[in-house]
Amino acid sequence: MTASKETLPLTRESVQSAHELIRKHVHLTPVLTSTTLTRFASTPQTAEDLEDTEWNRQEPANPKINLFFKCENYQRIGAFKARGAFHAIGRLTDEERSKGVITHSSGNHAQATALAAKTYGIPAHIIMPKISTPSKIAGTRSLGAKIYFSGSTSTEREAVLADVEAENPGAITIPPYDHPHIILGQGTSALEFETQVEELGSELDAVIAPLGGGGLLAGIATALIGTGIRVFGSEPRFEGANDGERGLKEGKRIENVSTLTIADGLRTPVGVINWTVISDKDKVKGVYSVTEEQIKKAMKLVLERMKVVVEPSACVPLAVVLYNEDFRRLVEKESGGREWNIGVVFSGGNTTVEAIGKLFEAPQQKSERAEGVVGADGKKIAENVAG
Amino acid sequence: MTASKETLPLTRESVQSAHELIRKHVHLTPVLTSTTLTRFASTPQTAEDLEDTEWNRQEPANPKINLFFKCENYQRIGAFKARGAFHAIGRLTDEERSKGVITHSSGNHAQATALAAKTYGIPAHIIMPKISTPSKIAGTRSLGAKIYFSGSTSTEREAVLADVEAENPGAITIPPYDHPHIILGQGTSALEFETQVEELGSELDAVIAPLGGGGLLAGIATALIGTGIRVFGSEPRFEGANDGERGLKEGKRIENVSTLTIADGLRTPVGVINWTVISDKDKVKGVYSVTEEQIKKAMKLVLERMKVVVEPSACVPLAVVLYNEDFRRLVEKESGGREWNIGVVFSGGNTTVEAIGKLFEAPQQKSERAEGVVGADGKKIAENVAG
Repeated sequence: MTASKETLPLTRESVQSAHELIRKHVHLTPVLTSTTLTRFASTPQTAEDLEDTEWNRQEPANPKINLFFKCENYQRIGAFKARGAFHAIGRLTDEERSKGVITHSSGNHAQATALAAKTYGIPAHIIMPKISTPSKIAGTRSLGAKIYFSGSTSTEREAVLADVEAENPGAITIPPYDHPHIILGQGTSALEFETQVEELGSELDAVIAPLGGGGLLAGIATALIGTGIRVFGSEPRFEGANDGERGLKEGKRIENVSTLTIADGLRTPVGVINWTVISDKDKVKGVYSVTEEQIKKAMKLVLERMKVVVEPSACVPLAVVLYNEDFRRLVEKESGGREWNIGVVFSGGNTTVEAIGKLFEAPQQKSERAEGVVGADGKKIAENVAG
Repeated sequence: MTASKETLPLTRESVQSAHELIRKHVHLTPVLTSTTLTRFASTPQTAEDLEDTEWNRQEPANPKINLFFKCENYQRIGAFKARGAFHAIGRLTDEERSKGVITHSSGNHAQATALAAKTYGIPAHIIMPKISTPSKIAGTRSLGAKIYFSGSTSTEREAVLADVEAENPGAITIPPYDHPHIILGQGTSALEFETQVEELGSELDAVIAPLGGGGLLAGIATALIGTGIRVFGSEPRFEGANDGERGLKEGKRIENVSTLTIADGLRTPVGVINWTVISDKDKVKGVYSVTEEQIKKAMKLVLERMKVVVEPSACVPLAVVLYNEDFRRLVEKESGGREWNIGVVFSGGNTTVEAIGKLFEAPQQKSERAEGVVGADGKKIAENVAG
């Protein structure tokens, strides 16, 4: 059975109602600012920065940008996913909820569903790929969920899902992103963001969020209908992970994506319902993509300058603001020389020191692993014959 | 010439006066809490945790602890050092200040002095070891300071210092930690901490801070005289870096330390003036030390659970609270079973993603570098003959 047949419409009012329902269960996450990153965003890129990009030898854009960061990395379970899970489960009737919930996820949505189910005192059955990070499996299990392992393909996952559904009649399946109540839950972050920036004496001109399955971006776009705040999506480009951007160009949703981008939360194609929101030009003004190197550069800045831990997926919007010239030109043009207040959503912070280490391995270490050992004097002393 | 001959006495009132002087130049840094870390601190260590320690096979302590974190990693220039530098320079007369200031430091104090000098519109002459991290040299230079390079020994440094002083008659030398105005400036963090915890509806029972040269610890102890809040110091133990702890046992200051602990801000011996405060049992109740592994474990928790970036030196107090059984027994005993509110000072956050990577290198990467290349099948295929 899939989460409530009776669903709320995708309106700003529904997001407000979702917020009422979940606010006692989720954190009002902080909004941070950074003079350093605001200065970087308002400084044109150099000719050298643009050298290896499609904007080589072009005049760099010169937008005036003031940045605000909505820190969902400080949300419960370390990511915005807690919002959608609490909303989808909270919206069920006591009767519907009583038999428990089922979902599938390799990471943040699994922990979010486990937490929400535990809070409501109901069973959670969660299908995770066998190859999921051990710490995420342990985290989900420690929240009391029952874990079922599957292979990594969607066919393998669907087979296990069918088994689990058959074994648990009456339990409700909560999809990870492609459901109105998930979308509305994620959108609550935007209502808070809007108010918090007002409390700081400013008004948002735009919000940019990561785009993976699309629950967060569709939710934000829905929450901000009629406010005049422009909404943008951001994606990694690696191995075609920018399915949203490509889909908008081609005029249709791209159904399959196979990428190993470091932004591991954004490897999925945009969901069907989410696509109806994201492809609506009145709701989402555009989707922009960045390279793996640009994501890493942004992540380095956030960790070292803001001293805030974010996961790679969470750095994609900032990377667009700093490094995507198409986006920067749009800001320069649309703002008419005025400063734009841009809200950047830090979607999550679930990474490890070892993963950070691997991402930013010194070139020497990396080349040792790739090519062979380099002695203390810099002379290469062995080839990695297994490479 | 050394910073003002006329110095304020080391009293709580002097710290309050320092705070008045510097508050418009420094950030009121946030105080954070963490349910997860508070739970860990209030959970006894396991027999396994204690196995390789001096407390092997002993009953683990069971203190009840509530943690508060004073985040000086969010201070200007990323460390508490901004406080002392603004105070020492702010306390000079216009006349004294007019010829500029001189100091020596490999890191945070260099940038702090450069920033304060720039703010007061005076020249800063800063002696840095040639081997300082390039980013710290660049950071100091970008704040307008004139950099002079020296060798790494104190003899080499003193020689350059003498030259710079001779070339700049009238310029005032600001020592990095062993000066009353530096001590009083660093102590302002404790005044804020005390008030901020009160605003959260609690009262601090104790504060624990890192101990290197001792400016911060002596300042905090001075700020909290007469408040009933107990003050503790914390040190790395590696290669004798725990000179404060050892000095207290031997009843005299240890003058020389040579250690390469990962807590690189705590490699210096305690200064002469600082020692008079730290060795006063009425002011500092004790100094405790931890191993390199314990510092890394604490750092991993702060980055992954709190999602806050701190440098290794900043993690030493938390490591003591979590892993030093002598400290934990003291808390259990002195609190009489009641919960203690312990304030932990995160002294700074100036690290890099590459440095984090190096600290938490996966064992496989590390062993490749130490011993030779391991092929994909796990077979060792080459010895590092240069090792």
